[in-house]
Amino acid sequence: MKDFFNYEVIAECPHTRARVARMSTPHGIIETPCFMPVGTQATVKAMAPFELEMLGARIILSNAYHLYLRPGVDIIEKAGGLHGFMGWDRAILTDSGGFQVFSLASLRNVSDDGVEFQSHLDGSRHFLTPASVMAVEESLGSDIAMCFDECTSYPISEEDARRATLRTIRWAMLCKQSHSRPDQALFGIIQGSVFPELRRLCGEALVDMDFPGYGIGGLAVGEPKRMMYDVLELMDQLLPRSKPRYLMGVGHPLDMVEAIALGVDMFDCVLPTRNARNGSVLTSRGMLNVRRQELKDDLSPLDPKCNCYVCKNFSRAYIRHLHKAGEILASRLCTWHNLHFMLELAREARRTIVDGSFPRLLEYCRKVFGDETD
Amino acid sequence: MKDFFNYEVIAECPHTRARVARMSTPHGIIETPCFMPVGTQATVKAMAPFELEMLGARIILSNAYHLYLRPGVDIIEKAGGLHGFMGWDRAILTDSGGFQVFSLASLRNVSDDGVEFQSHLDGSRHFLTPASVMAVEESLGSDIAMCFDECTSYPISEEDARRATLRTIRWAMLCKQSHSRPDQALFGIIQGSVFPELRRLCGEALVDMDFPGYGIGGLAVGEPKRMMYDVLELMDQLLPRSKPRYLMGVGHPLDMVEAIALGVDMFDCVLPTRNARNGSVLTSRGMLNVRRQELKDDLSPLDPKCNCYVCKNFSRAYIRHLHKAGEILASRLCTWHNLHFMLELAREARRTIVDGSFPRLLEYCRKVFGDETD
Repeated sequence: MKDFFNYEVIAECPHTRARVARMSTPHGIIETPCFMPVGTQATVKAMAPFELEMLGARIILSNAYHLYLRPGVDIIEKAGGLHGFMGWDRAILTDSGGFQVFSLASLRNVSDDGVEFQSHLDGSRHFLTPASVMAVEESLGSDIAMCFDECTSYPISEEDARRATLRTIRWAMLCKQSHSRPDQALFGIIQGSVFPELRRLCGEALVDMDFPGYGIGGLAVGEPKRMMYDVLELMDQLLPRSKPRYLMGVGHPLDMVEAIALGVDMFDCVLPTRNARNGSVLTSRGMLNVRRQELKDDLSPLDPKCNCYVCKNFSRAYIRHLHKAGEILASRLCTWHNLHFMLELAREARRTIVDGSFPRLLEYCRKVFGDETD
Repeated sequence: MKDFFNYEVIAECPHTRARVARMSTPHGIIETPCFMPVGTQATVKAMAPFELEMLGARIILSNAYHLYLRPGVDIIEKAGGLHGFMGWDRAILTDSGGFQVFSLASLRNVSDDGVEFQSHLDGSRHFLTPASVMAVEESLGSDIAMCFDECTSYPISEEDARRATLRTIRWAMLCKQSHSRPDQALFGIIQGSVFPELRRLCGEALVDMDFPGYGIGGLAVGEPKRMMYDVLELMDQLLPRSKPRYLMGVGHPLDMVEAIALGVDMFDCVLPTRNARNGSVLTSRGMLNVRRQELKDDLSPLDPKCNCYVCKNFSRAYIRHLHKAGEILASRLCTWHNLHFMLELAREARRTIVDGSFPRLLEYCRKVFGDETD
């Protein structure tokens, strides 16, 4: 494993728990903190692989659940794994499908052995176990695979959360036992909702299992921000500083920077891409919806301070026109810009952690994005 | 005009009426025969400008009718014309809207002065005259503007066709009188449906007006192929060999090559882009629909003989998956490939006209695409 995967902290923020690290994988080195664009169905929506490279993305996320159902694992394996199938030769992290089984599938039947469910696509019946999910992720050939977990919604009773947490711990053990691919790092996922005792229980159990990295799951599912930050503070105490931490599904700019300050390294979120398709873009002055009437004659770029391809070549008026006319290029340009924003924010975090000015970045994000997050 | 626009034949096919020419415009030199990707609403659907450059497109087409209605001419003029508005600094040809007024708008009221119609977008009422259309195209700032014409459908009575032809001749004169922008070439459009006498009438009248180029309109609207080729043969006799000829709306691979053999230089068609969005792609063996079930496990490229970005990086199985999953990248990749096919076919026509082997290209296209065109 050491040969294939390594994580090394190279700088620490003197003011917060933030750090910069170099994470090496079979498909390249990733500097953290990093934002991972989401490619659920083996494509980051509206983007081509070469564009993600131009944006400087070093790792993207994809979903075992979706790919298992469509197009199926066989054809991906035949194509040389997900990298070959989708034409992306940098790193990939695959989520196990825990979140998707609990959010998308219907007629779930959960037992300690696994989950029986109906596909959200065609209603077909499936049974996933920790071992079968490991087999799927190994076939996909991602650089980082996530354990199969039971992801809880919010709010949830402590009793239900406890049951899911215990199951997640048991499944983490089973995943570790059945996972065998040496060129793939298996990360544990810590659940426990907003209950400190459960988070501690799960965290300590998974640290004992000695995973090369840890996902923090079950957050950003509707709980108050303060509760999320409390969990992250507890995680920072429990988890070894020598391993990467991945806050799953989180990617609002402010949430990302706040979590970086609490020692988190990796992020993913569908919002920068999904919002883009609705015309909502991230700018240095906050969110902007390009469909607004008053942008009809606005020839300035989406964000005058941005130097991405979109902002260097196109105006708000043009992009608004594309949205109103239902043109695919509208989604493309807004997605490009939003991903640039998130990847640039992660770069800025790394830069400021190294030079000691990270708290200023945090203050700036609180000022610009503070009204929108809760 | 000579300074801004020039057309020079540089090679002629020894076997057919085909020729290669160099056409210079304020936004670059175009070698003909050429295929113009269609960017109706100021974007070639699913493509970004830099990709069109990568594909080697030297000129694209856009539509005065659509842009006049949305986003409106004022904002485009404020952006420095269509080139600045859409971020494309190579040549643009704008269609006048004749075809669109007659195919898209409702409640038309045509008189010798112009057309009153209701917008297909919001029902608003508009009145377009030859002079007002010239003003729109001059504001758009395209390199080549088309005259405002009355485009007829097929079948049509000779009497109705005669009325439209006479009006088209009258409007061509009015367009020429009101057109004043020296850095924009105004092409006449020859109508007359499938009636040789009307085509001759219109052709001779417009040749007398001495336009720098000629559109051949009202074809590929449902008439038998043989009739289209007959009209093109007549046009070849009537039109000066020293001026470019543009067969409007035609772009099936075989039609294009047949028309090149009859002396046509310029083509545009929505089918390569529209069909792409439905998964239908052009290959060296004919059309292929990538949604077909038997391509599920096919790891070969769309066209094994193609060297475009798509064929070098992605498989049929992957592109099929993207289509089935409703991903934007599906439309992008198929559009990219189809435009590459058409632009490459035009390049191949130019190459074989020069080296004398053009008839072989024609035979090849008849063999591969002959079953699909009638």
